Formats: sequence, structure tokens, C-alpha cells
Amino acid sequence: MQTIQQRFQVAYEYAIFFTENLFDQNNPILKDFFGNYTEQGFQRKALVIADAGFADFHPTLANDIHAYFSNSVQHINLAPEVIVVPGGEASKNDAALFDKLCEAVDVHGIDRHSFIIGIGGGAVLDLVGYAAAVSHRGIKLIRIPTTVLSQNDSGVGVKNSINFHGKKNFLGTFAPPVAVFNDLTFLRTLDDRDWRAGIAEAIKVALIKDVSFFNWIEENALALANRDETVMAYLIHRCAQMHTDHIGGGDPFEFGSSRPLDFGHWAAHKLEYLTNFEVRHGEAVAIGIALDCVYAAKLNMLPESDLQRILEVLSQLGFDLYHPKLAENDKINLRNGLHEFREHLGGRLTIMLLEKIGKGVEVHELDADIIASAVDYLETKTINTSVLEAKI
Amino acid sequence: MQTIQQRFQVAYEYAIFFTENLFDQNNPILKDFFGNYTEQGFQRKALVIADAGFADFHPTLANDIHAYFSNSVQHINLAPEVIVVPGGEASKNDAALFDKLCEAVDVHGIDRHSFIIGIGGGAVLDLVGYAAAVSHRGIKLIRIPTTVLSQNDSGVGVKNSINFHGKKNFLGTFAPPVAVFNDLTFLRTLDDRDWRAGIAEAIKVALIKDVSFFNWIEENALALANRDETVMAYLIHRCAQMHTDHIGGGDPFEFGSSRPLDFGHWAAHKLEYLTNFEVRHGEAVAIGIALDCVYAAKLNMLPESDLQRILEVLSQLGFDLYHPKLAENDKINLRNGLHEFREHLGGRLTIMLLEKIGKGVEVHELDADIIASAVDYLETKTINTSVLEAKI
Ligand SMILES: NC(=O)c1ccc[n+]([C@@H]2O[C@H](COP(=O)([O-])OP(=O)(O)OC[C@H]3O[C@@H](n4cnc5c(N)ncnc54)[C@H](O)[C@@H]3O)[C@@H](O)[C@H]2O)c1
Ligand SMILES: NC(=O)c1ccc[n+]([C@@H]2O[C@H](COP(=O)([O-])OP(=O)(O)OC[C@H]3O[C@@H](n4cnc5c(N)ncnc54)[C@H](O)[C@@H]3O)[C@@H](O)[C@H]2O)c1
Ligand SMILES: [Zn+2]
Ligand SMILES: [Zn+2]
Repeated sequence: MQTIQQRFQVAYEYAIFFTENLFDQNNPILKDFFGNYTEQGFQRKALVIADAGFADFHPTLANDIHAYFSNSVQHINLAPEVIVVPGGEASKNDAALFDKLCEAVDVHGIDRHSFIIGIGGGAVLDLVGYAAAVSHRGIKLIRIPTTVLSQNDSGVGVKNSINFHGKKNFLGTFAPPVAVFNDLTFLRTLDDRDWRAGIAEAIKVALIKDVSFFNWIEENALALANRDETVMAYLIHRCAQMHTDHIGGGDPFEFGSSRPLDFGHWAAHKLEYLTNFEVRHGEAVAIGIALDCVYAAKLNMLPESDLQRILEVLSQLGFDLYHPKLAENDKINLRNGLHEFREHLGGRLTIMLLEKIGKGVEVHELDADIIASAVDYLETKTINTSVLEAKI
Repeated sequence: MQTIQQRFQVAYEYAIFFTENLFDQNNPILKDFFGNYTEQGFQRKALVIADAGFADFHPTLANDIHAYFSNSVQHINLAPEVIVVPGGEASKNDAALFDKLCEAVDVHGIDRHSFIIGIGGGAVLDLVGYAAAVSHRGIKLIRIPTTVLSQNDSGVGVKNSINFHGKKNFLGTFAPPVAVFNDLTFLRTLDDRDWRAGIAEAIKVALIKDVSFFNWIEENALALANRDETVMAYLIHRCAQMHTDHIGGGDPFEFGSSRPLDFGHWAAHKLEYLTNFEVRHGEAVAIGIALDCVYAAKLNMLPESDLQRILEVLSQLGFDLYHPKLAENDKINLRNGLHEFREHLGGRLTIMLLEKIGKGVEVHELDADIIASAVDYLETKTINTSVLEAKI
């Protein structure tokens, strides 16, 4: 019998909005968005799930959202409870939390034409996004990211995940949101580490794609370190735009082996593990970038002057460029990360390195000895810098 | 700041192959398929997960597959164990089984460029498909359906699912396979109920879309009931083709409210529940079709002569057209199913009814009293038929 050939395309579309005071009664942006969903014949609902790390700083959050909906979004039936989940990586490690969210979807009758609104950092958005993606085979997800990293990177993309039996991001899907709302004022309560951490992803994308953006970051490093909001707003917007363009222009669901946005990430993932997530994702990415840049310079691939500019910007922003866990067990622990990175992504090992600032190039192997000497370089440099700082 | 607009399309493609004796060393079809995956630079793997209800009849299954791979697919690294899971609905109710499959993905190093090969009925394929879809955000899935229903319907489509806290298909995704292999010889060991059950889906698709296919089924009803394999092969191929065309030509990931292929399914789902899955999916669909056809005839929407032809074909094939659970609790249990059906699908209640054989039409409400009298009709008719049979 003749083979049957199936072929189709699925189209996705969503907007990333930039705003301040999202739930202020006078801010029309959410109202306008929900104005697109006013069909007759059925009742859409919405369920809000928020990051405790954010909600604790916003004690009126549930009230504000309820007031906003009852004034301006009356046609959407908002679930009475705002579910608050613990923030940070812990939320992705807790299978009971995932179950709880799926239960809530059922209890509140959230169907495929209703909305789940996730508010929080990258970790909570990953958890909420996963629960939304698999409940009833996919509920409409609205993301309201509340960290720098989630506003410029994880929250604007198409992925979600939770950890499984200690394996980071083992369970997940590709599931685009229906909208993202980035509120600059939500970043005010971030501690300095989380404010800083997200900047690493902007440096990453600048380094592999856009020298002019890197130059801009260089010029504004001090303002960023001093929590200048106007400068941060620009950084987030430009970084989000580059991410969006990259995803939309290429291989959004990553069917191929190439993942340029994972520049600096192989070592970062391993370091997060080795430190039991004590080091934040963005902090680990900064170290991962530093390591792979030193590596590329040792190959004479990346000019020394570019290397120094990169390390300098990272330092100015306040990132550590070294962590003792990198050297642990004669650097074997770190080097195992390369294998695990390939395993998680599958396909051929593909690592992005830099040829110059603004231009990445993919390689398919890394030399263990050069990795080790790059670690040594960062260790020595960090000690010297501390000595220097101590002297000043 | 300016809103960022994301837009992209994702393309999917897969073939449904028809064959006999798939794992016979001389059958090149699997070998040819894997011949498309011979890139240098990395090692693809494969993990086989099989339905116990099928595997029990094929004690040499694991050996046959290993022999086939070591002779003809040497470039793919086959995991040493063939995992066997219990068949039927139970497999979708057991969260520990899902966990076990994800663990196996990790233990055997199955990555996004490797394959999971699911062999079994619709339930096992749903479970395996779900585990494959969410592990590492999606592993390549090959389906080898071993029931009539999975060969002509569930196995050729794009959905997977498991049950969650007793809620049928609550967790799942849309995730197309990379290939489907339908082996006619695998159907020989089916019991008569499972042989018959899958035919209901073919009748369903014929009724809403293709009168000539219905005529063909009518002419061949006795041969089908007598397990004529040639006739069954044609039925499966044509039904699979219609499903494939429908999915590819319309709204494959069901973003809208319309789901014509759910004709007969609102009552079917409820009946499966009310009987604790003692009634098979296909058996329940046959009753659901009968009920909705009587309903449409009572509205004078469907001509009486068409109704009688439909009921006659279903009876000839050996389907029961009535189950006492339909009438339970003054038919209120059944009628609740309508609400639950809408809840699971979301959006506006949309039910397919028949205008004539080969032509469905969507309505947005059903009348509770007419449902009740349609149930009474089927009950009476069934009793009379039995009396008649008893007399003869
Ligand atoms: N899905 C993706 O594409 C993707 C991409 C990159 C990273 N990630 C994931 O993102 C996670 C990291 O996200 P992150 O950097 O946003 O950190 P995070 O989500 O771990 O949040 C850090 C801390 O900030 C708190 N917090 C959140 N918003 C706050 C606010 N406005 N004020 C005060 N505290 C607040 C949280 O409760 C948490 O304790 C990791 O799990 C990583 O795997 C996902
Ligand atoms: N994903 C979809 O789009 C979709 C569509 C329709 C139905 N379904 C699901 O499919 C399931 C029903 O599938 P089904 O009708 O194939 O029944 P099933 O999977 O429950 O299998 C019925 C029985 O047959 C046994 N079996 C399987 N192959 C056999 C063989 N070759 N010989 C002997 N025994 C064999 C099984 O072990 C089981 O006991 C339901 O869970 C339903 O929800 C899914
Ligand atoms: Zn990152
Ligand atoms: Zn069905």
C-alpha cells in the first residue's frame, strides 16, 4: 500500500510589550490585549501564578490584579486565588509544585482558550510555562517576567522546563507564549546579584552577533552597575529584540544541532550544578563567557585586545570571573560538563567560540588541556585583581 | 519602548508506511528509513518501548529487533533493553510508568537526535509519545501501532497524553512523530473486540466526510466482521489517509474550537468513564455515533433512511448500540459529559452532527430532553433486536 506523506506548518505569533506599572488602573496595555479576545459563545478564564520572591515585595498584588480585571477586563473570568509559588531554582525541582499547578488548572476550569498568567523570574516562568504547555495539551500562556534575565532572555523565548530527578531542564517543551509584558518598575526590588546576572545574557548575544551593542554596553557599564533604569530599559529591549529575531529567523524549536545562543553555557550549566545553584544562571554565564573567551584567545582565534575588553566589561559590572569549583577534582568535574552538554542537546557537539567581538564561530571539539589552562588563567587573574583592589 | 513582534512558522513532515513483517530481516523498510540519518560526527541511539499486550504474543520481539538492527541499522545504537509496559488504559493512569520511561531516556543517553520507538495500542503510544515529547523537550518518536484504532487513527496523528489524577488525557502535547509503520500482520493477535473497535473511527470519518467510503464499509461489513485482512488493510489505509489530510489541511494543533473528528465523541468519552474504561474507546465511539445520529434524526436534520443504514452497519459489525450506563441517574450522568467535553476542549461548545451520510454540520448546543429520548430509542431498539434474534 502506498506510503502516506504528512506535511504541514504551524504558525506562531506573539508580542512583547514594554511598560511600567502594569496593574495600575490607568495602564491600558493589558486591557487592550484582552480586547482581542471578546468572541461570543464562551467564557474565557484566567489564572495567575506568581513568584513568592516578587509577590513578597508586592503585598497588594492579588488585590491590584483583581481590581484591574473587574474594572477593565470584565469579560475574562479571573480565578479568585492568585497562586504563589516559591521562587528560584527550587521551584523547578519540586514535582509536587508542578502537580499543584495542574490541579489548579482543573479546579478552576482553565481550558485551552483560557489564560495562565505567570509572574516571576526565569525559574518560576519555566515551571508555570511547562504546566501550562502540557495541561489540556496547552493553555494560553502570558508571561510577566520580573528579573532582568527573564525580561531580556528566558521570558521572551519559546522554551519551558522543570528539573527531573536532579537533571536540570530534563522535562520541558517548546511552547510560545501568547504575550509577554515587561514592566521596568518590577525590577526595582531585585537584589544586586539578580539585577546584574541578567546582563550576562545581553553581553553574550552582543559578543556573538553585534559589536555595536557590545560597544554600547562597554560605555554604559558603570551606569548599569549603578542601577540606572533608563540604561537598563534600553539593554533589555535591545537584547530581547536580538533574541526574538534569532528565534524567529532560525530554528525556533531547535531541530538542528546549532545553538549559538548557548555561547558560554556549557561551563555555566556545569558550574550551576557544581555549586548546587548557589551561583545564579547569569553569574555562571558570565564565568562561562570569560572561560570560552580565554580559550579562544589561547587558540589565537580571538585577539588578545578583544579578550581584555570582554574581561574588563564583565569585571566592571561586578561579575566574578572565577569560581573555585572550576578547578575542583583537577578540572575533571568541569570537563565532564562538555559531555553532559552534548548529551542534553543531542547531535554533534557544537560549541560557539569568538573570532572577534561581535562574531561567533562554531567548533565541534574543545581541548581538555587548553580548558584547564584557561581555568588557571582566570584563577590567576582574579587573584591578581583582588591583590590590586586590596592595594587600592 | 516599541513593542516587539514575534512571528514564525514551524514545519513538520512524516510518512506513514504500510508493511507486513516489519522486523523480518528481509524487510528493508526500517533500514531504508534509518538510511536518512547517517550524518557524521555523532551517534544516534534508539530505545524501544513495547505494549505487553502485544509483546506477550511475540516472545521473540526483542531478539528480532536486535537482530534487525545489528544486520541492517548498524549506525544506530540500539539500547540493550526493550522496555515492556502494561497495555491499555492502565498505562496512562500510572504516573510511575511515565517516570520510569523518562528515567530510561536518561539512563540510555537518548538525546534529541535519537529515537524512541513505541510499539503498541493507542494507550501505550499515547504514554510513550508523551514521555518522548517532554524528555529533553522532545525526542524523535517512531510509532508502530498494533491495534486497528491506533493504525487508522490515534497512531497516525499528532497527539499524545496521559491521565492525571483520574482526568482522562489531562496531560499531553501536540508532537508529530518522525514516522509511523503500520504492520498488518501485527493485528492477527487482537481479540475480536479490539479488531472491531477501531472500525468505529473509520465509520466516523466516512460519515462526516465521504459517502463513498461509507458505502464501501457497508458493502464490506461482513468481511470486516469475519476478519478479512485484505479488506481491513484497505479500511485502515483509507481512514489513515483521511485523518492525515484532515490534520494537515486544517488546524493541526487545534488552536480553534472546531474539532470535526470528535464526531460521536462527547458521549463516548463519558461512557468510557462511566464504565471505568470497561467499554473500549472504539466501542464507545460506535455508541456515541449511534446516539448523535438518532439525535439528528429526531431534529429532522438526518433523514430516517440514513439513520437506519448507519445503525444497521454498526450492528452488522457487531457493535452494541446501547449501554445501561447511558440511562443511569435519569441520564444526568451522561448529560454532564457535554459540559466536561467543552471544558476539556475549551472554547465554545461545538458538536458535529450529521445532515446526511458523508456530510457533517456543527452545532453549538444540544437539547437535554432530546438526548434523553435518543437514549430511550437506542435502549428500545436494542431490546427489540434481541427479542427478534431470540425468536429466530
Ligand atoms: N526557558 C528559557 O529559555 C531559559 C533561558 C535562560 C534561563 N532559564 C532559566 O531561568 C532561571 C533563572 O532565572 P532568573 O535569573 O530570572 O532567576 P530566578 O528565577 O531563579 O530568580 C532569582 C530570585 O529572584 C526572585 N525574584 C524574582 N523577581 C523578583 C523581583 N522583581 N524582586 C525581587 N526578587 C525577585 C526569585 O524569587 C528568586 O529568588 C533558571 O532556572 C534557568 O534555567 C530559562
Ligand atoms: N492520541 C490520539 O490522537 C488518540 C486518538 C484516539 C484514541 N486515543 C487513545 O487510544 C487509546 C485506545 O487505543 P486502542 O483502541 O488501540 O486500545 P488500547 O491501547 O487500550 O489496547 C487495547 C488492548 O489491546 C492490547 N494489544 C495491543 N496490541 C495488540 C496486539 N497486536 N495483539 C493483541 N493485543 C494487543 C493492549 O495491550 C490492550 O490490552 C485510548 O487511551 C484513547 O484515549 C488517542
Ligand atoms: Zn542563559
Ligand atoms: Zn476516537
